[in-house]
Amino acid sequence: MEPITTDICIIGAGPVGLFAVFEAGLLKMRCHLIDVLPQVGGQLSEIYPQKPIYDIPGFPTVNAQQLVDSLMEQIEPFKPTFSLGERVNELEQLEDGSFITITSDGTVVHSKVVVIAGGLGCFEPRKPAIDRLEEFEGKGVAYMVKNPEAYRGRKVVLAGGGDSALDWTIFLADIAEEVTLVHRGDTFRGAPDSAEKVFKLAEEGRINLVLQSHIKSINGNGHLQEIELVDHNNEISIINTDHLIPLFGLTPKLGPIADWGLNVDKSAIMVDTFDYSTNVKGVYAIGDINIYPGKLKLILCGFHEAALMAQSAFKQVYPDQKLSFKYTTVYGVSAF
Amino acid sequence: MEPITTDICIIGAGPVGLFAVFEAGLLKMRCHLIDVLPQVGGQLSEIYPQKPIYDIPGFPTVNAQQLVDSLMEQIEPFKPTFSLGERVNELEQLEDGSFITITSDGTVVHSKVVVIAGGLGCFEPRKPAIDRLEEFEGKGVAYMVKNPEAYRGRKVVLAGGGDSALDWTIFLADIAEEVTLVHRGDTFRGAPDSAEKVFKLAEEGRINLVLQSHIKSINGNGHLQEIELVDHNNEISIINTDHLIPLFGLTPKLGPIADWGLNVDKSAIMVDTFDYSTNVKGVYAIGDINIYPGKLKLILCGFHEAALMAQSAFKQVYPDQKLSFKYTTVYGVSAF
Repeated sequence: MEPITTDICIIGAGPVGLFAVFEAGLLKMRCHLIDVLPQVGGQLSEIYPQKPIYDIPGFPTVNAQQLVDSLMEQIEPFKPTFSLGERVNELEQLEDGSFITITSDGTVVHSKVVVIAGGLGCFEPRKPAIDRLEEFEGKGVAYMVKNPEAYRGRKVVLAGGGDSALDWTIFLADIAEEVTLVHRGDTFRGAPDSAEKVFKLAEEGRINLVLQSHIKSINGNGHLQEIELVDHNNEISIINTDHLIPLFGLTPKLGPIADWGLNVDKSAIMVDTFDYSTNVKGVYAIGDINIYPGKLKLILCGFHEAALMAQSAFKQVYPDQKLSFKYTTVYGVSAF
Repeated sequence: MEPITTDICIIGAGPVGLFAVFEAGLLKMRCHLIDVLPQVGGQLSEIYPQKPIYDIPGFPTVNAQQLVDSLMEQIEPFKPTFSLGERVNELEQLEDGSFITITSDGTVVHSKVVVIAGGLGCFEPRKPAIDRLEEFEGKGVAYMVKNPEAYRGRKVVLAGGGDSALDWTIFLADIAEEVTLVHRGDTFRGAPDSAEKVFKLAEEGRINLVLQSHIKSINGNGHLQEIELVDHNNEISIINTDHLIPLFGLTPKLGPIADWGLNVDKSAIMVDTFDYSTNVKGVYAIGDINIYPGKLKLILCGFHEAALMAQSAFKQVYPDQKLSFKYTTVYGVSAF
């Protein structure tokens, strides 16, 4: 295959990666996007295409897929190219500072800048040490709640002590037939008002709260049927359930990016808020994959990060040109 | 008048001030907004309500007033209150750290946090030293181009050497009958490609370029008619014109905010990108009024700043509560 030559190789075609094409395009930089998913939109298209989003500025509410479609329309003048359904297998920086990115399908992208916009796709759930856990993944065990309605009328065990565990316990109490929350401690790390609600639900008998206990193993015949609990006195008990949702947070899964010498803390890639650059010159990280003081994992923050990144990337792509900042309201959008 | 008691007093009801109500509302904080303009929307409603905006993420194009209307709908659940057509005359911090804001109409707002989102309304144009300049303001002299069509078929003199002067010279060359650009130097500070275009337009005889010269005085009978130029040899010449547009940038006009001990550089209020706080505890600055390394004066950046500000303001408003970050996509928006 002929290598694809472009200005910016964007890893991740979620909403933030897509909007980066717009900000790059305003500065006359072309983009190629790579995503492991077979379609653009990231989480929005993959996990909750029909869900309303309420916190995109200017949209009192917007359907997730609609937002993706609008972003695609917005970047259309800049003719981005895509390699979808492909994983980044190799990343290499050449002597001249440019980059070669090679995907699982053998696509080769040569670019002056690499932007990592991998979002949630760069994370995996932290899995607790429970016997046979992986065996029942997709057969009753899930690490995130994609569609709460799937639990209507079912028996659900949640495990964890943070906000996700508390919030989903409260949420599913109204939906599931039976909700049990298992937690190793006897106090919660999550928000005090959420913890209070959980204790109240337990008092009212609307959920089962099992504290100072952990799950030792799970069992079933083709589908999850029971979990084995151990309490702080090492006493064992069995709970029948249809579902187990361990909620112990996410951990980054960076693939070949991890070998790159990027500064990564336990949660994400560390960037400079001046331009959302990483410690490797020419490599930026925007959206949920990055971390900096004050970071919020919001799409609207990723949009801002994309705008500031583009200003800095311009200096990599056009080292001899002075950047002239122009307002689209005055000058419009010039297509390629 | 009874004082208005609220959590956050937002000075400026432009798009960024409005969106701050949403981010505050998600965290159960109420807002009161003050704006010197008689309507919400800031520049968008005041200067270009019918102009399309192209760089709001998710909107391939949106009419400025439509964006304002959508933001008003988005924040409606949080019942913001407004003092419009009022100027902030006094700001005072009480011993308990809370704030009293008093407007020109005598409205008194007592709040735990003050957010300055004054935008362009906090700036005024830098006026060059030209005899009788202010006398002809609104009578041929303007410091910004609100509506380029107003110059169709007219004679226009622009003055300045930066991007605005270059860009509007290029833009108006197609619209005005005659365009003259006056600049004190013989090279331009603006973008090299813009400067090149201006030199080319001058060579082609499509504009008049008057370098190493400045305007000494202007003259007219009720409306601007001529300007008096002085060149570097102190030779004087006269140009007939209908309009003069001096473009020497903007300078902050902070009113009583200037007496507040805020760190202000020549262009704006300095903030910490962790939370867009100023150096005065409890006072934040978001949108075009602030400055930090990498700052872009874009609405989308102000939205991000508003989101991070709200997280920090929460600690001022609810010092004893732990903030629990919840996604609206999962939890929806709870109205007041």
